[in-house]
Amino acid sequence: MRFTKMHGIGNDYVYVNLFAEKLPLAAPDLARIVSNRYKGIGGDGLILIGPSERGDARMQMFNADGSESEMCGNGVRCVAKYVYDHGIAKKPELKIETGRGVLTLQMFAGTSGRAERVRVNMGTPILKSADIPTTIPGDPPVNQPLVVGDKTISVTCVSMGNPHCVTFVDELTDAWVLGLGPQVEVHTAFPRRVNAEFAQVLSRTEIQLRVWERGSGETQACGTGACATLVAGVLSGRTDHQALIHLPGGDLEIEWPDEKEVFMTGPATEVFSGEWFPEV
Amino acid sequence: MRFTKMHGIGNDYVYVNLFAEKLPLAAPDLARIVSNRYKGIGGDGLILIGPSERGDARMQMFNADGSESEMCGNGVRCVAKYVYDHGIAKKPELKIETGRGVLTLQMFAGTSGRAERVRVNMGTPILKSADIPTTIPGDPPVNQPLVVGDKTISVTCVSMGNPHCVTFVDELTDAWVLGLGPQVEVHTAFPRRVNAEFAQVLSRTEIQLRVWERGSGETQACGTGACATLVAGVLSGRTDHQALIHLPGGDLEIEWPDEKEVFMTGPATEVFSGEWFPEV
Repeated sequence: MRFTKMHGIGNDYVYVNLFAEKLPLAAPDLARIVSNRYKGIGGDGLILIGPSERGDARMQMFNADGSESEMCGNGVRCVAKYVYDHGIAKKPELKIETGRGVLTLQMFAGTSGRAERVRVNMGTPILKSADIPTTIPGDPPVNQPLVVGDKTISVTCVSMGNPHCVTFVDELTDAWVLGLGPQVEVHTAFPRRVNAEFAQVLSRTEIQLRVWERGSGETQACGTGACATLVAGVLSGRTDHQALIHLPGGDLEIEWPDEKEVFMTGPATEVFSGEWFPEV
Repeated sequence: MRFTKMHGIGNDYVYVNLFAEKLPLAAPDLARIVSNRYKGIGGDGLILIGPSERGDARMQMFNADGSESEMCGNGVRCVAKYVYDHGIAKKPELKIETGRGVLTLQMFAGTSGRAERVRVNMGTPILKSADIPTTIPGDPPVNQPLVVGDKTISVTCVSMGNPHCVTFVDELTDAWVLGLGPQVEVHTAFPRRVNAEFAQVLSRTEIQLRVWERGSGETQACGTGACATLVAGVLSGRTDHQALIHLPGGDLEIEWPDEKEVFMTGPATEVFSGEWFPEV
């Protein structure tokens, strides 16, 4: 099976082009095998790029445990880069069908003619506490106290399709991310658990961010977490409507121009392509 | 750059065939970049397969941090499989030049005609305590007491070119491996630190093994650790001169037939091959 390995600021997947390839196994089984970082190809999961009747291509994504996900901001940028660079549709604006509908992406090509950065419309944030969902009051819940263990922290909650709880901190330490993160994730205030963002505002247009992801622990990069953090920064008056977000895996530019849709711009990188064979 | 990803019971490296390829970067830099599991190809390091005046091929290996290593039992089996399967030298016995001299390997091919298992002469164990090196008395040090924290354990020490401290346990628990392992590694009895093996003898021909590797923590598989464990089993009267060793990553057959050289037989697996390109 031919495949391509790509990443968006360290969030890496194995990509298979279904315009040209047939899967040798059912997708969930294949995802589990190829995601293994020692005995497989290695990645956070498997993303299939195939024909769409509603857009230039369709993205289907499977996590490393074989479960299916609707969408991933870092993943869809890579899908768009693949579709552009490999000539499936070489247009400055692409439409990619995902589990969350058809997304429109702007492509920024470098001197090589290949896409280097991609801008994606991440949709409108959900700000009603019952819909995030959280029991913390306020629509939206901004700078609300939350008792975690023997500490009371101040949080702002936002959903980008998945729930986020943003804490602005003076200094970004392991004590916050690894100490408080797991406790926030499973706090009773969040009936579906939550992603916990810890953000240090460097200026009104620059944020340093670490994310404790629901079900995964700390990750290199979380696209929806970066979006939620910029929205929380605007809602709480800490930032402008556009900011550069520094994550451990790299940088994302987030915009929330008219407080409707959130846009994320970031790099997409092709690392290698190859031919995978079952064990011999 | 064309490459092949292979593993021996989970110990995985990026292999480059220098008979056909030129490296785009200096090997230590390349090793650091390609070993990254998120933004590179992913692996425990980089192994180069090139021409040799003393054998069928020469193996040069670099760890993920760019440092060079002399030899790796799981790695040299994969080198031999590559040399065999790709027709560089399709012989039942191959000679591979390594940093520890020219090794002789026996190839066991499957019905596909490709090498499935490889037997490698791992050399003669070093049993003098000063040469292992350890301050624990006895040549060899067998069933000697070692005080670790508030516990006294019974250990047998062996060098396979690198130092090993083997503890036979009734039950293989995290308390042993993750609790005692890091303390044994840096114990003052071992001037160059040590690899800590925890072994449960299932029968005289079967051992369950977990290894805390010097500088790496617990690993999926440690070839020299499996060899040292069988030698320790023989020296302490617990096992025969041949045993199947179960490691988390898979099984190795270890022989010490006449108490001279140790032989290791295990699988070697090609997972995928591909073309890697610098970031665009």
